[in-house]
Amino acid sequence: MRFLSDNAAHVCPEVMAALVAANRPDDGYDGDALSRRLDAAFSELFGTEVAALWVSSGTAANGLALAAMVQGHQAVICHEDAHIQRDECGAPEFYTGGAKLMLTGGPGAKLDPADIAAFADSIRTDVHQTQPAALSITNATEYGLVYAPDEVAALGALARARGWGLHMDGARFANAVAALGCTPADLSWKGGVDALSFGFIKNGGMSTEALIFFRPELADATRYRRKRAGHLLSKGRFAAAQLLAMLEADVWLRNAHAANAAAAHIANAAGGRLLYPVEANEIFLRLTQAEAAALRGQGFLFYDWAPGVARLVCSWDQPASDVEALARAIAAL
Amino acid sequence: MRFLSDNAAHVCPEVMAALVAANRPDDGYDGDALSRRLDAAFSELFGTEVAALWVSSGTAANGLALAAMVQGHQAVICHEDAHIQRDECGAPEFYTGGAKLMLTGGPGAKLDPADIAAFADSIRTDVHQTQPAALSITNATEYGLVYAPDEVAALGALARARGWGLHMDGARFANAVAALGCTPADLSWKGGVDALSFGFIKNGGMSTEALIFFRPELADATRYRRKRAGHLLSKGRFAAAQLLAMLEADVWLRNAHAANAAAAHIANAAGGRLLYPVEANEIFLRLTQAEAAALRGQGFLFYDWAPGVARLVCSWDQPASDVEALARAIAAL
Amino acid sequence: MRFLSDNAAHVCPEVMAALVAANRPDDGYDGDALSRRLDAAFSELFGTEVAALWVSSGTAANGLALAAMVQGHQAVICHEDAHIQRDECGAPEFYTGGAKLMLTGGPGAKLDPADIAAFADSIRTDVHQTQPAALSITNATEYGLVYAPDEVAALGALARARGWGLHMDGARFANAVAALGCTPADLSWKGGVDALSFGFIKNGGMSTEALIFFRPELADATRYRRKRAGHLLSKGRFAAAQLLAMLEADVWLRNAHAANAAAAHIANAAGGRLLYPVEANEIFLRLTQAEAAALRGQGFLFYDWAPGVARLVCSWDQPASDVEALARAIAAL
Amino acid sequence: MRFLSDNAAHVCPEVMAALVAANRPDDGYDGDALSRRLDAAFSELFGTEVAALWVSSGTAANGLALAAMVQGHQAVICHEDAHIQRDECGAPEFYTGGAKLMLTGGPGAKLDPADIAAFADSIRTDVHQTQPAALSITNATEYGLVYAPDEVAALGALARARGWGLHMDGARFANAVAALGCTPADLSWKGGVDALSFGFIKNGGMSTEALIFFRPELADATRYRRKRAGHLLSKGRFAAAQLLAMLEADVWLRNAHAANAAAAHIANAAGGRLLYPVEANEIFLRLTQAEAAALRGQGFLFYDWAPGVARLVCSWDQPASDVEALARAIAAL
Repeated sequence: MRFLSDNAAHVCPEVMAALVAANRPDDGYDGDALSRRLDAAFSELFGTEVAALWVSSGTAANGLALAAMVQGHQAVICHEDAHIQRDECGAPEFYTGGAKLMLTGGPGAKLDPADIAAFADSIRTDVHQTQPAALSITNATEYGLVYAPDEVAALGALARARGWGLHMDGARFANAVAALGCTPADLSWKGGVDALSFGFIKNGGMSTEALIFFRPELADATRYRRKRAGHLLSKGRFAAAQLLAMLEADVWLRNAHAANAAAAHIANAAGGRLLYPVEANEIFLRLTQAEAAALRGQGFLFYDWAPGVARLVCSWDQPASDVEALARAIAAL
Repeated sequence: MRFLSDNAAHVCPEVMAALVAANRPDDGYDGDALSRRLDAAFSELFGTEVAALWVSSGTAANGLALAAMVQGHQAVICHEDAHIQRDECGAPEFYTGGAKLMLTGGPGAKLDPADIAAFADSIRTDVHQTQPAALSITNATEYGLVYAPDEVAALGALARARGWGLHMDGARFANAVAALGCTPADLSWKGGVDALSFGFIKNGGMSTEALIFFRPELADATRYRRKRAGHLLSKGRFAAAQLLAMLEADVWLRNAHAANAAAAHIANAAGGRLLYPVEANEIFLRLTQAEAAALRGQGFLFYDWAPGVARLVCSWDQPASDVEALARAIAAL
Repeated sequence: MRFLSDNAAHVCPEVMAALVAANRPDDGYDGDALSRRLDAAFSELFGTEVAALWVSSGTAANGLALAAMVQGHQAVICHEDAHIQRDECGAPEFYTGGAKLMLTGGPGAKLDPADIAAFADSIRTDVHQTQPAALSITNATEYGLVYAPDEVAALGALARARGWGLHMDGARFANAVAALGCTPADLSWKGGVDALSFGFIKNGGMSTEALIFFRPELADATRYRRKRAGHLLSKGRFAAAQLLAMLEADVWLRNAHAANAAAAHIANAAGGRLLYPVEANEIFLRLTQAEAAALRGQGFLFYDWAPGVARLVCSWDQPASDVEALARAIAAL
Repeated sequence: MRFLSDNAAHVCPEVMAALVAANRPDDGYDGDALSRRLDAAFSELFGTEVAALWVSSGTAANGLALAAMVQGHQAVICHEDAHIQRDECGAPEFYTGGAKLMLTGGPGAKLDPADIAAFADSIRTDVHQTQPAALSITNATEYGLVYAPDEVAALGALARARGWGLHMDGARFANAVAALGCTPADLSWKGGVDALSFGFIKNGGMSTEALIFFRPELADATRYRRKRAGHLLSKGRFAAAQLLAMLEADVWLRNAHAANAAAAHIANAAGGRLLYPVEANEIFLRLTQAEAAALRGQGFLFYDWAPGVARLVCSWDQPASDVEALARAIAAL
């Protein structure tokens, strides 16, 4: 019973079917009929004109997004626990030509506008100090918390006032939207987001994420950078097909709801063991070594996150029986 | 009737079946059972110990291979028509941190050891001039010619004598092996190749190429660079599955033979119109504008390559009737 | 008797005196009184508003100039014999984050607008091919030829029409101005030059070149990039002092005239041995090995440039007796 | 009365005299007689074979040193207040191709081996996390504290055990040596330092620092990187002359003793106002706004460092009367 990572989950049937359907000759790279539908499909979803590019990983999406807003001599402000800082082996630095990540704190990997403003005020505006040019937030955060629309908007207002771009790492953006019951627009451009790494892979996709620019002109140079990074796939129709299949009939939202519901069920059983409220599909649980061993002894797989803390992640396809079994096992500890 | 690009072709059924079979939970990134089989599978194919990494494009494979051999202040010697120079939007420069591509000539995009040696001798060994650290060749070349084992070995001997790494861009390596009837080893490590971008996508794959290091220790830092470039896919089992499916029962070789045979059939009909001998699956044909229009009028799709020259590419799945029709149409011009 | 390089020459007395005069406490970096005078002093010289930055080498000036106009995924068009390509160990690639130098030909390292336009037309405007964003020319060229104002203007018009920046490597800009008898404006912004690496060191300076932006806003990010490259000197007053001393009373022009005159005298004696007309202070001479040895036997020091070709450079301080002796010796060969 | 920065000070007479003496024709770049003496002169000073390169700034020295030890996908561990992090506009990232600076704490910008070890232990050794490859310390630190030989050795032992290079930013290395009364060797290679940025400019030099490699083979690629960064000066003899003049008769040590003594005199007067012990030539003083204004009213110039804290720096040439006046003024507050 795997609660290790939503990357371990199945690819959902709609995506598999779309791959089979896409298996016919068409133009290479992003010249095929499916890739050419992406801008329109995502513009409709977001209710505004966007540029949408498929990419093969969230790391690439994040790197390309930041490269569109930040030059090598500038900086990105982000949380010290942000995925871009801790788990991408320096991809932002690679894509931006060496921009600095400036790290700030905040519980649950959530950033607070006042903290950010104070941090930014501490930077002298002279050439000796790297100047920030973008703010990057993760929604849902690395600890499974969500920024609500007004929270995004507050950060967006700050970014705009300072002349920074605003990037959202949305590896679990679908889970955040599902959790809040808002529109994708509410959590993105309406709050001032300029570029969104919109995750599909953890949510039932196979190998494709979407990079969305709400200022479509940012996509122009990005298309060159995507090629230069080796991310312009030669049979792009198989990438586009995955995204379109998940937009169709809101599969992306259905899957996210399923994962969130599973996590919520487990969270209900966890009570005071929760390190953070469970707002999306990740659960951080206080467990002694003995408790962790006991759960593993019953067949539950999950990661140790820190001493005394375990991380459990629910997938879109988490079997209900596994979820129920885990909830009971935790309650029984 | 498409003769535009082997990227336009179908994904072969073995690969599609492997994707379906791989759709079960497993560890993320390259920790899954399939990814962990790659080193052994390619070591067996090549008859020597190799490190094998999946990547999503030939451009990424080339960039990572060169980054393993060349630092930013150094250079790569390659042909002026090499794909890495003309069609990758500066990916080698991106991956190596700004290394210079030093361009040389030679008919059909084939390099000659004597020319390379003379070129290298013209570089002063002082700090003002960029010093080459690698040689990169393409087999089959961008004009569809193949380097035979002894030709590779001559370049490998040169590289070793100069202290350079030898990289082979094998986007159509399978076609070269099929054309020559030799072993993969004959065309690679036995001739001194250190790193091979082994192409599968043009040959019936979907989205995965193999990067092969014949000096396996070169893979160590490459694994970090792959992550940093956003090329460590989170559901890597679907990448590994494609490669393993094509190694199984030599599907890769079967597909390459099919494409080569189609091209040979057309070449036989083309006679003196051929710009180069057709040794693999690409045909460069002298056509007047009127002749090109006439062929297109009969439903044949292909690229204009240069004034008076068309490029036609045969795929692994090129319908025999299309091939036969094109051969007749060309003969009838 | 040294005709090796203008780098070997003395620092002129005005510069030495200015260093002594500058040796008093003042603010660090470029906050001192002398550095703050540079914009105005060069604006006056050029008759238009410019931003002027001191830097420690022509290589740094060139790199920073190109970085202000070209991103890493783009390209610079230049001559295959350009200093930025052949003698800077990849500095343009370093400063631009890996932009590609696209090489073209032309006698005497001079570029022709028609050739450049034809070359640019051969580049497909798709993401597979690196797109040029700047043109870089050297005046006087690496072979001592000068672009006249109308020649610069023709290249400037081409650059503007294509949307490229125009950079001039002016390591010997003073010699070009002196040779033509025009104004510095005629050879720069009036012809469409956006950024000029204005050389002083070969012309009697010690350790400082000027980087001039005719679109002053390009200097904003450059000031950060200069710091980031370690070129913001902590006692900048000694850099500014050198430039101001050479602007004062047109020392820069006096020195250049002297070097040009010396070269012209030798050229007159060389007749048909000249590889190129001597328009500035460099002489490329056809010499057999025996002739070269004979000259060296008489105490003349110079570089072999290519088989059968020697390069001789005259400095601002070349003793008249040495010049006369060399002229006679060449005539007597 | 300036206590702003040791960069504001005079160039010492020995350096000025050396510049005048160096003003004779010689080979360009680092081929001149003076530059060729550097390795030997610094090897003698350090009592071991070193490679010594002149560079124009401490920022360049630091960047080049780190680039010799760290690749772009790796990291440098340093203090959060390190100059390389806070005051070089991202130069380490530029020179290393985007390596990450990993920040740790410690009072007075001093690092503690146990803290560093614990920090390093928190990094997973997988490809998702950037792996450190070097440790960088500053001696004297950014707050004027010194690492004693045994403290350097403890960090050196840690670095060696972990396989990291050890870099010392010695912008005020002379002040540290003078303060400790030890040998330069005691503070560098004997403690495991691999590369030292040895500062001369703040200590009476004009425009040249020394980059010292105690593993001389690290200098080989560095010489190319120095050129590529535009730091290979064309009249290098004027750079070498500065360093040699300060090594001669231990001018560097004399100057550092003078600056330290001035600071010590002021520190004696400051008593409990000192934020840190004054071990070199920097003084961090607790001052109310009124007190700071009072001092400024008496003609003393210094920086506000943080709310309630002023920084005062003594130079090698600080007039004794100014020092005495300041000491009295502080005592009288």
